[in-house]
Amino acid sequence: AANKKLLFLPGDGIGPEVMRQVRRVIDWMDRKRKITFDVSEGLVGGAAIDAHGVPLSDATLAEALAVDAVMLGAVGGPKWDNPTDYTKRPEAGLLTLRKELGLFANLRPAVVFDALVDASTLKADVIRGLDILIVRELTGGVYFGEPRGITDIGNGERRGVNTQVYTTSEIRRVARVAFELARKRGNKLCSMEKANVMESGLLWRQEVTKLHGEEFQDVELSHMYADNGAMQLLKNPKQFDVIVTDNLFGDILSDEAAMMTGSLGMLPSASLGAPDANGHRKALYEPVHGSAPDIAGRDLANPCATLLSFAMCLRYSFNLDEDAKLIERAIQNVLGGGMRTSDIMAPGMARCSTTVMGDSILREL
Amino acid sequence: AANKKLLFLPGDGIGPEVMRQVRRVIDWMDRKRKITFDVSEGLVGGAAIDAHGVPLSDATLAEALAVDAVMLGAVGGPKWDNPTDYTKRPEAGLLTLRKELGLFANLRPAVVFDALVDASTLKADVIRGLDILIVRELTGGVYFGEPRGITDIGNGERRGVNTQVYTTSEIRRVARVAFELARKRGNKLCSMEKANVMESGLLWRQEVTKLHGEEFQDVELSHMYADNGAMQLLKNPKQFDVIVTDNLFGDILSDEAAMMTGSLGMLPSASLGAPDANGHRKALYEPVHGSAPDIAGRDLANPCATLLSFAMCLRYSFNLDEDAKLIERAIQNVLGGGMRTSDIMAPGMARCSTTVMGDSILREL
Ligand SMILES: CC(C)[C@H](C(=O)O)[C@@H](O)C(=O)O
Ligand SMILES: CC(C)[C@H](C(=O)O)[C@@H](O)C(=O)O
Repeated sequence: AANKKLLFLPGDGIGPEVMRQVRRVIDWMDRKRKITFDVSEGLVGGAAIDAHGVPLSDATLAEALAVDAVMLGAVGGPKWDNPTDYTKRPEAGLLTLRKELGLFANLRPAVVFDALVDASTLKADVIRGLDILIVRELTGGVYFGEPRGITDIGNGERRGVNTQVYTTSEIRRVARVAFELARKRGNKLCSMEKANVMESGLLWRQEVTKLHGEEFQDVELSHMYADNGAMQLLKNPKQFDVIVTDNLFGDILSDEAAMMTGSLGMLPSASLGAPDANGHRKALYEPVHGSAPDIAGRDLANPCATLLSFAMCLRYSFNLDEDAKLIERAIQNVLGGGMRTSDIMAPGMARCSTTVMGDSILREL
Repeated sequence: AANKKLLFLPGDGIGPEVMRQVRRVIDWMDRKRKITFDVSEGLVGGAAIDAHGVPLSDATLAEALAVDAVMLGAVGGPKWDNPTDYTKRPEAGLLTLRKELGLFANLRPAVVFDALVDASTLKADVIRGLDILIVRELTGGVYFGEPRGITDIGNGERRGVNTQVYTTSEIRRVARVAFELARKRGNKLCSMEKANVMESGLLWRQEVTKLHGEEFQDVELSHMYADNGAMQLLKNPKQFDVIVTDNLFGDILSDEAAMMTGSLGMLPSASLGAPDANGHRKALYEPVHGSAPDIAGRDLANPCATLLSFAMCLRYSFNLDEDAKLIERAIQNVLGGGMRTSDIMAPGMARCSTTVMGDSILREL
């Protein structure tokens, strides 16, 4: 069989240093598990702007379309802020990847690690054992809707427009992913929108309800307005199992949920496309955290989120569930042993660098 | 001088019972403070749908336009959910009021009362003493933008559209309110949008920056992406003083902030229009909480949020700062004495009904 093809896009800020730890795990898999990956590497975001003048070159996009899965670090930073051309922001590279690869389903687990329960600003009993999965629509909505832009409307006035748009099939395909994942978990799905204010949200609610009736009656479905969702997440997060929501609400609510766990540096994500004839989905894996320019290049970043993203990659793109579990367990054991990067440091624990965290995880493996 | 004119719109669910306590305070003001209000009453939301077939009658709207200020309870409930006609939802009554009265600035304080610091799911030291003010744009953005609606696009597919739109002057007028309020408080303003993804957000950021340079250089201004805002609110809420954001982000972020305080039943809001020639602004005051249909009519609701909304009304619409403070202090003292409605009940406190809470506050006054 052909080797498994991976494209590495380390990106900006702490992206390269956390991705380096994934390389080490890949070497370990090659040596110890006899599982070999063909890894190519490319530029995205600010790094690509500096090199090519665009946040994603055509060649890199072509490569991303050709591989089995993309591993991404992070994009963005103050260096590339406020450019005059809106298509030349680092973020545009990531958005193009999502759109061109058709990665419509963004899976964002919000999980509280037992060893880190005190890292949250929420009370321990509210979040202990928390395990929710947010499925965010990723290629539609106001992120990509047309018309969009800023126009001069005279008298020194300007007008900024974006368009929130969803179609039946866009809603159904992401809802289907969410229902299917719910079946493998707690069998509960909560769909969030603002159907009381936005027609696009009303359509969302209607189509999710319809699909539920047609194919997923065994899954317990509820609906919530997104503002209430933001409140219920805080009030009683454990009421949720899987949440499905649109691109923009998903951006906000998944970040809220991530911060609630208190360990942003621990949270992975997967972005999946539609299955092809062989059941293979295009996919991109990245940590939930950003490029953290303030600590970039100082060997301080937490590599766990990226390593756990690689575990998701093994599971979803290569069906290597056992290996995914090995990595997840190694990370848990290292945390259990008291190792902490700065972001999750707590009294009585051992503060370590990115590299040392990687060392420990490899030793554990 | 003509009497002060108030329109009461109790609305649905617990709206009428919490508004009843405001009546009692108004009677007290008449008797003890020699301040008299002309109070008229009307229907809004589900109550208006039941009576007139529309969530806000033309007569009630005309009355709202004629008075000095509107006091609203809450709208909505399962009884009126999913109507086939989108303009016949209870929420449409509230949205029409906001739009027709031009109430573009929605002030939502998120304050933690010392006596209630343990009611939050957040750790006490994270939120003790919290006092932030969210200024939400309320008559623009995706709530009102055109085109909007659901259309058939063939093959059994439908398409739902909403439009996010902001103009220079819409952004400036709400930012001005926020800057002015910041000056009277901690002198810090944080503006939130998704300028990295939405052009309407980029325009927002540019216009806020421009206004800051022109008129408010003494106020410390920062910008934050709204998803990061949702995280920072949880991570370290006390970093904020005043936050200004658009209608949709404001809906979500202010609910998140409200729930963080742990005492949703305690939070008031004010919605203000532009000042007229005499400096008078059209205004509507309402609690942040909803209509809570599950406990409606059972004398269980917390009337404090509505009473504090009335205090805001005294302050902003009638310049009666002293009387506003009397009410605020009375509520604080009653809480200090251990009185609690169910929503804020805690061990060692005295559980009381809506009416008894009202009794205690009046006695304190
Ligand atoms: C970087 C940015 C474009 C992106 C988004 O808004 O989707 C980020 O916040 C995310 O959630 O992945
Ligand atoms: C009831 C609803 C229309 C309203 C809104 O979305 O603005 C509510 O959530 C609010 O925040 O006042």
